[in-house]
Amino acid sequence: MNNFQIEQASLIEMADFAQEIATEVRKISLKWFRHPLTIDTKADESPVTIADRQVEQALRTAINRRYPQHGILGEEFGLNNVDAEFVWSIDPIDGTRSFISGHPLWGCLLALLHRGQPVMGLIDIPATSERWLRIDQQPAIFAGQPCRTRRTTSLDSAILYSTTPDIFTGPEVQAFESLSQSVYLRRFGGDCYSYGMLASGHIDLVMEAGLQPYDYLAVAPIIEGAGGIITNWQGEPLGLQSGGQVLASANAVLHRQALARIAA
Amino acid sequence: MNNFQIEQASLIEMADFAQEIATEVRKISLKWFRHPLTIDTKADESPVTIADRQVEQALRTAINRRYPQHGILGEEFGLNNVDAEFVWSIDPIDGTRSFISGHPLWGCLLALLHRGQPVMGLIDIPATSERWLRIDQQPAIFAGQPCRTRRTTSLDSAILYSTTPDIFTGPEVQAFESLSQSVYLRRFGGDCYSYGMLASGHIDLVMEAGLQPYDYLAVAPIIEGAGGIITNWQGEPLGLQSGGQVLASANAVLHRQALARIAA
Repeated sequence: MNNFQIEQASLIEMADFAQEIATEVRKISLKWFRHPLTIDTKADESPVTIADRQVEQALRTAINRRYPQHGILGEEFGLNNVDAEFVWSIDPIDGTRSFISGHPLWGCLLALLHRGQPVMGLIDIPATSERWLRIDQQPAIFAGQPCRTRRTTSLDSAILYSTTPDIFTGPEVQAFESLSQSVYLRRFGGDCYSYGMLASGHIDLVMEAGLQPYDYLAVAPIIEGAGGIITNWQGEPLGLQSGGQVLASANAVLHRQALARIAA
Repeated sequence: MNNFQIEQASLIEMADFAQEIATEVRKISLKWFRHPLTIDTKADESPVTIADRQVEQALRTAINRRYPQHGILGEEFGLNNVDAEFVWSIDPIDGTRSFISGHPLWGCLLALLHRGQPVMGLIDIPATSERWLRIDQQPAIFAGQPCRTRRTTSLDSAILYSTTPDIFTGPEVQAFESLSQSVYLRRFGGDCYSYGMLASGHIDLVMEAGLQPYDYLAVAPIIEGAGGIITNWQGEPLGLQSGGQVLASANAVLHRQALARIAA
């Protein structure tokens, strides 16, 4: 068995493990969903609850037990051993504002980085039991089947999603309006769910700002594994210091047009 | 048996019938959901698909067969016999823009009017199998249990939902911004789902404009049956000629504060 095969086998094992722990923590998040919660405010003024913290803690404990040599980058409890060969990225509840509103389309995001490169991404939606997964260079999977982005090649027939117009500040507002005015339809709501809808071929564009690495590290491999493209607003690959401006498109033709509108 | 009892018995029968047909037409809408669709544009520039038309046609056929003397007011096929003692209001797919985006929180809305007054309202969410129902003066029901709005009495801890900022035009924009700036959190997305979240005590306010009677006739009894209030932006009851500006609140204290902010 060569090194490549060993790596593939262990990657599949790690992805199985990711799916297991994502399923396991659904019990925690769903236990708190639509139940009275104390809402705290973080330094960046975003809300956080006991649900976010308990889910991340359960994921960190499971990862530390199974892969003690791996590093972890989590939304609520920060960095641990991030120079390791394998690092897990965790967003325990992406869409806490939806979560505290009883709105079901929040998700749990898990990514696995190998020497800084994402090799697995998982979007799990506990309230609807939906899940998108991508392992290494394989196609992205939804509900057990490969999923595929749309072939839309013209902005004027494209559907654009963004979580809320309130994420854009300063000149970002005009860039978002410029793209909005070029598309067939823009809609709000969604957090990570919008990227799933893009990967599954239901919408064409997602434009956001203010994102953190744990918001997009899990999402990017899924978009790419479904045939889409995800970059920053300058068309550059997303890394750990991407600045939080994200554009995801169903395909390269549409992505070029959208980047041009944003820059206009 | 007096007239009142006769009416209650027949109302319950009609509500059972409404639930049956709502369940039946889920098969039609879900068959088309997330499948390729031709999107047509109506006179008001809103999108419509074969799914909207087939669902409404199936509902109209079922109502005409069971209650041939009843009138119908439907989004896609208009008015029929609306001077009848009982009139059904139908929105086959509330949230067609969500529907065509693969976004699951669209709904089917049914209301029953008796001499112009709503006596039954039903919000059905096929993709998540959720349903809110209210019959006459009984409590609103969600998942088989009475549901209840929140007790929030201060705008600065309130969560406000609206489908999209794009529904507001002219001076409505400023009115919406004024309320938005007074609340803890505003979020977008939802269509009828937001009213369900309000009835179930997860959010505090819904503010919208441009609504049609078939959008709010089913929703209003549910909000009121859960302890909330729903009026136009002047605080007047919603009728068939309400102008489309709707404000729903978890309780009377919050409603007064929100009306004052809108008028400011």
